[in-house]
Amino acid sequence: MIRAEVELTVPFHDVDMLGIAWHGHYCKYLEIARCAMLDKIDYNYMVMKATGYVWPIVDLQLRFVRPAKFGQCIRVAAELVEWEYRMKIKYLIADLETGEPLTKGHSIQAAVDAVTGEMSYASPAVFLQRLGTKTDVY
Amino acid sequence: MIRAEVELTVPFHDVDMLGIAWHGHYCKYLEIARCAMLDKIDYNYMVMKATGYVWPIVDLQLRFVRPAKFGQCIRVAAELVEWEYRMKIKYLIADLETGEPLTKGHSIQAAVDAVTGEMSYASPAVFLQRLGTKTDVY
Amino acid sequence: MIRAEVELTVPFHDVDMLGIAWHGHYCKYLEIARCAMLDKIDYNYMVMKATGYVWPIVDLQLRFVRPAKFGQCIRVAAELVEWEYRMKIKYLIADLETGEPLTKGHSIQAAVDAVTGEMSYASPAVFLQRLGTKTDVY
Amino acid sequence: MIRAEVELTVPFHDVDMLGIAWHGHYCKYLEIARCAMLDKIDYNYMVMKATGYVWPIVDLQLRFVRPAKFGQCIRVAAELVEWEYRMKIKYLIADLETGEPLTKGHSIQAAVDAVTGEMSYASPAVFLQRLGTKTDVY
Repeated sequence: MIRAEVELTVPFHDVDMLGIAWHGHYCKYLEIARCAMLDKIDYNYMVMKATGYVWPIVDLQLRFVRPAKFGQCIRVAAELVEWEYRMKIKYLIADLETGEPLTKGHSIQAAVDAVTGEMSYASPAVFLQRLGTKTDVY
Repeated sequence: MIRAEVELTVPFHDVDMLGIAWHGHYCKYLEIARCAMLDKIDYNYMVMKATGYVWPIVDLQLRFVRPAKFGQCIRVAAELVEWEYRMKIKYLIADLETGEPLTKGHSIQAAVDAVTGEMSYASPAVFLQRLGTKTDVY
Repeated sequence: MIRAEVELTVPFHDVDMLGIAWHGHYCKYLEIARCAMLDKIDYNYMVMKATGYVWPIVDLQLRFVRPAKFGQCIRVAAELVEWEYRMKIKYLIADLETGEPLTKGHSIQAAVDAVTGEMSYASPAVFLQRLGTKTDVY
Repeated sequence: MIRAEVELTVPFHDVDMLGIAWHGHYCKYLEIARCAMLDKIDYNYMVMKATGYVWPIVDLQLRFVRPAKFGQCIRVAAELVEWEYRMKIKYLIADLETGEPLTKGHSIQAAVDAVTGEMSYASPAVFLQRLGTKTDVY
């Protein structure tokens, strides 16, 4: 299972005039967890590009269950749930102390050839190799 | 039909190291179109709060069809598609010149009593009145 | 005189829990005005890079005179005030209706060779040529 | 001496198409360090407001010495250097590993009465008391 967790504190500049983290900022929290997960399999954005692909987000879904407040400590978990044809990652954001779920969601990324710009209909071998090697380890 | 369109230009600071607008910034584009739509029915965030409710986003879905680039002019359309129990808004982001669709999505907001913090299972009367009055006009 | 003005509306997601635009967001307002000014002399970031240079910001100063609120319409003016050795731009943000100054500031950018990464101690000829051609026009 | 340090990693969404952290994002890094410093003297934004004042930023200066890259670990130090009439904080951002300075700057905040909106020409007693108590400790 490819999975990573990061712990974050909701910063002042993410909180709106209603006193809660503006929903759009959660994309940043997911990005940080996603990068931590990709680092674990040595397939972060720099490696992707160096090996010929970029992986734009093509689909994003978020369900906001409870609001997060200024200074609240949160845990953001990212887990790879699909990899053969595209990269689907599930997320769970929870309060760090109580474990209460705050936000759930997923993202889907598609491999695009970095040179031609064409979408790849199967995951590049270099990505699948990373998973093969690393699924034993993590 | 309650609907609004805004025209935006993708700013430099929204573009990532892959040369495209980072997906999370689209939440800002939707926010601007949503606010324009709410202004049309005189029910923006200030009015919401003054009349006793806040409307946090509880669900957000985005499909990224084509990337947007630095300096690209885009049109963001927001349209109210549900209002009785919650507020569901559909979005379409398209290239301003060609009309090519770039991003599609929707958001769902739920009315929450500004004092008690309790979720309301039907839309507040003040919101429905705004629609009644204004659907004739727009 | 090389100068540009843009009109912006303070969006919801820029406003903090104290009800005013968070100071850090003004960097975005300046960026938009700066890009409009650079477009006027056909020397925007794409042209800079295509002609061999990047121009990172090396100095930024901002004085916040009056806060800006959600939905407030503002005018952001950018004016080139130094160009021989570096690019210094002065900014004035004012309320669009009343003209009341809200924020003043300046930025300084230095030319850096895009290949070697070395700072250039004089402005590249291509930039000065743009000014020569265009100062007659604007 | 009132001082705090935080360690951050430059996230993907802060990096521009030139491959470096966009300068405006440094305001967020300073904000996080400033909040950590204010927490140390138990005078964060919530306490400020609860005790009758808000402290908007009135002046910000930043000197960018070296760029920061995606994934770079940085240390952000904030230190209170003036407090009698206004709050002046100095910042130093450095590479976490090498200690190389990346960015230097300061911010100035003025106390504003939360009810009347009037600027206070001396620091509120509650803030000075916090310093008196805490300077012994830190």
